[in-house]
Amino acid sequence: MIVRDFNEIAKSEPTRVVSDAKWTSVRMLLADDKMGFSFHITFLEAGSEHTFHYKNHFESVYCMQGSGSITDLATNETHEIKPGVMYALNEHDKHILRADEELVMACCFNPPVTGKEVHQADGSYAAPDLEDA
Amino acid sequence: MIVRDFNEIAKSEPTRVVSDAKWTSVRMLLADDKMGFSFHITFLEAGSEHTFHYKNHFESVYCMQGSGSITDLATNETHEIKPGVMYALNEHDKHILRADEELVMACCFNPPVTGKEVHQADGSYAAPDLEDA
Repeated sequence: MIVRDFNEIAKSEPTRVVSDAKWTSVRMLLADDKMGFSFHITFLEAGSEHTFHYKNHFESVYCMQGSGSITDLATNETHEIKPGVMYALNEHDKHILRADEELVMACCFNPPVTGKEVHQADGSYAAPDLEDA
Repeated sequence: MIVRDFNEIAKSEPTRVVSDAKWTSVRMLLADDKMGFSFHITFLEAGSEHTFHYKNHFESVYCMQGSGSITDLATNETHEIKPGVMYALNEHDKHILRADEELVMACCFNPPVTGKEVHQADGSYAAPDLEDA
């Protein structure tokens, strides 16, 4: 059994905390935990906007705190994001995520991320086999 | 892209809400969403105690609200559960989960549950191939 406390990770395991432009993600589970998915708590700064396109991963995102919106760039539909709303990128959907207030999200990735990915120019993370190469 | 609102599901999709003795689970994602995992928001009643043993699934559980404890029955170790604590049953660990205050948990299962499982006498869910049989 793995037990981890979000509130301790920043102090004890700083490599699990990943930041990029206006977001920070705490990786509670990564590929090497061998659960078949990774699990992250992610913070998106108030007023920020992010274009992501996970071509190589399925991701679900559950809003725990904050408010914002998501636009599906295939359909141009926009959905409100508020506590209790989940979106799932079951078609690797390219999207824009906007935080009006700071968003706090619980995210699952399949395949699990390794923790070493950076967003590429196209908004994706590399596929696991490329990361391991 | 799938978008679901926890606050609407109970009204619009009651089959996604599963209850058993002293717990209720809202299935935000199930096997037929084809994400490779399922994602549930689960409530455990204050004062309740649960023995679970997911022999056929990996599960991670992130505490969003409440307080309690988990005992790993292989080692007899007990860990405090409070907001920010996650446990992951990476060895299909048989465990007792106790809610001192009502617990609100974000749970991921791999393989995804279908939504039709009930806990068997041994605390497990049947494996997917058996469920589909």
